[in-house]
Amino acid sequence: MNPRTGRTMLNPFGTTLVEDYGTLYDKFGIQPFQPLLSQVPNPMAAMRRGVIFGHRDFERVLKAMIEGEEFAVMSGIKPTGEFHLGTLMTAREVIYFQRQGATAFYCVADVEAYEDNGIPFERSVRNAVGNVADLLAMGFDLRRGYIYRQSTEEMVKDLAMVFGRGVSLATLKAIYGERNMGLYLSALIQAGDILLPQLREFGGPKPTVVPVGVDQDPHLRFTRDLASKFRRKYRFVPPSSTYHKLIRALDGSAKMSKRDPMSYFTLDEGPEVIAKKIQNAFTGGRATAEEQRRLGANPDICPIHDLYLFHFFERDEDVEKLYGEECRGGKILCGEDKDRLNKMVTAFVKDHKRKRCQYVNKAREALGVE
Amino acid sequence: MNPRTGRTMLNPFGTTLVEDYGTLYDKFGIQPFQPLLSQVPNPMAAMRRGVIFGHRDFERVLKAMIEGEEFAVMSGIKPTGEFHLGTLMTAREVIYFQRQGATAFYCVADVEAYEDNGIPFERSVRNAVGNVADLLAMGFDLRRGYIYRQSTEEMVKDLAMVFGRGVSLATLKAIYGERNMGLYLSALIQAGDILLPQLREFGGPKPTVVPVGVDQDPHLRFTRDLASKFRRKYRFVPPSSTYHKLIRALDGSAKMSKRDPMSYFTLDEGPEVIAKKIQNAFTGGRATAEEQRRLGANPDICPIHDLYLFHFFERDEDVEKLYGEECRGGKILCGEDKDRLNKMVTAFVKDHKRKRCQYVNKAREALGVE
Repeated sequence: MNPRTGRTMLNPFGTTLVEDYGTLYDKFGIQPFQPLLSQVPNPMAAMRRGVIFGHRDFERVLKAMIEGEEFAVMSGIKPTGEFHLGTLMTAREVIYFQRQGATAFYCVADVEAYEDNGIPFERSVRNAVGNVADLLAMGFDLRRGYIYRQSTEEMVKDLAMVFGRGVSLATLKAIYGERNMGLYLSALIQAGDILLPQLREFGGPKPTVVPVGVDQDPHLRFTRDLASKFRRKYRFVPPSSTYHKLIRALDGSAKMSKRDPMSYFTLDEGPEVIAKKIQNAFTGGRATAEEQRRLGANPDICPIHDLYLFHFFERDEDVEKLYGEECRGGKILCGEDKDRLNKMVTAFVKDHKRKRCQYVNKAREALGVE
Repeated sequence: MNPRTGRTMLNPFGTTLVEDYGTLYDKFGIQPFQPLLSQVPNPMAAMRRGVIFGHRDFERVLKAMIEGEEFAVMSGIKPTGEFHLGTLMTAREVIYFQRQGATAFYCVADVEAYEDNGIPFERSVRNAVGNVADLLAMGFDLRRGYIYRQSTEEMVKDLAMVFGRGVSLATLKAIYGERNMGLYLSALIQAGDILLPQLREFGGPKPTVVPVGVDQDPHLRFTRDLASKFRRKYRFVPPSSTYHKLIRALDGSAKMSKRDPMSYFTLDEGPEVIAKKIQNAFTGGRATAEEQRRLGANPDICPIHDLYLFHFFERDEDVEKLYGEECRGGKILCGEDKDRLNKMVTAFVKDHKRKRCQYVNKAREALGVE
């Protein structure tokens, strides 16, 4: 059933969800997002389409949204490179919640980039400026938002110090495996990021939603545990979260990887490069055009379909049409489909780059960079 | 042989050293201090008397002292209470090196007090003001000194973050055992304390001596390892250290303990309380006065002797006389000896308290406390 239209149909949004993400509900206690969807004001495309498929304690945030109470949204980026399709999704989510009334917190995780990837702060600040310019170009409103780098945000580092006393080694090893101290420290700092919106300096305890890729859930569980341990001191409300699926890599594998530049594209790449990557992408198509027209293709394994679904079709009708008659119905061949996508991506990237230029100085200012 | 006088004698300074501390040389690579003593300019009493018995790489600091080159001294206090006889020793050492030309760094380890003992920063700041007033009253010169709290010193916290990436879990477990993350974090911060004097902000790399009780050596080894790991980035000179013996507890056991208030006294206690504690102290005396006059007493196990040796006899001759004819020779009974000590302690504490009052505001200022 399409939750928006109420029509029972082959669900273009739910297929992979049920297959790959279903166990998360049982095993980790993530709740399905779909049952709440009808109450969500102006749900974003990713919600309507099941890209955002799960949550923890989102009801608390929903109540604040509906009743016009204070709430916050918090997410961020590890500044190891340019905006890609995953960080784009998070940015869209942050901006969506901000437009629904949230105070928005966006963190540049440069401590994590250092501890995990060895990128010195001096170097990650360049990426950070670009990342924040992207965010501002997409519509993040600085007047009701707080953007910062972990390495220079004392409130976050101080929370990490306080939390340290409440965290055993066993907990960290269970979540992150045997890693260096720095990685564990960055986990404490990330918990600080998530609870920062609830400090006195920002108006005190409040519902907070953290929209992330589902691979980030361990951080959330860790932070919720700390919120409870330090409840008496700070009166923290346990942070809520929403989970989006991870967009398929262009080669058809499960997740885009920085180690394989052909598996994704970033917003600063040239249109010819992006076009080539799309042209070379894996699809769910058949061996021959004749076969595809006769039997249809398989959108459920197709990164091109994912790109439309996650980002480039604005209207749900277009997704449904693509998933149904065009793709499964064999009405469109993969080459044509890629050409159409390529035009949309090129137009988006061109428009985005133009806007982004105008925000570089504002980004520097927001990050306190000279 | 007495290194100062050149006379061969029963060594009042060396006995416990050889018995209890000797293995440190072989097992941990601590070097004996005694061979360097003759070159040390204006050696302090604790050096002459073997209370400071060991070191690591002190030659480097000694060279700077002798040649009038830049060097630093760094130590600190965990602000869990008032100055006691252990922190008094460290303070004396810091002030000694400052007077020999060092830039002096003194750290209030409030992060450690929190992570290890659960004392919130708000609470430890009160102790810190008192501790720093003590230090200033003893003669610490703020014009060539830097006093700070770990919790508010961003340079130290930032060093800790940088060091995190170079520290494995195995290392921390080997040194500190299985502890919470906060304790490990405070170890990183302590490494930051020790290397702070070498930052660009303080004139860059320089020999630095860290005078500590010998129980603190693991921190030094840990920090020396980090200095080497991050040498390329910061050009750190490996920090040097000196080690003093731990003063015997008043009950005769090896170390004073905060858990047993009768085992030590602090500088803010009333003279009657201190007198009582001294009166009740264990000694190396005989069962009867007659026996003691005939056979002499044993200063090597006596906390009263330690108090003279570590702190209250200014002249080495007096220590030698006490150790030799008075105590071992049976010329003095423990009661008389305690009375004499008590008078000296009372005079010292009275004088110190008077000075300390004048420094409370300066201490607040130095710590940035309102």
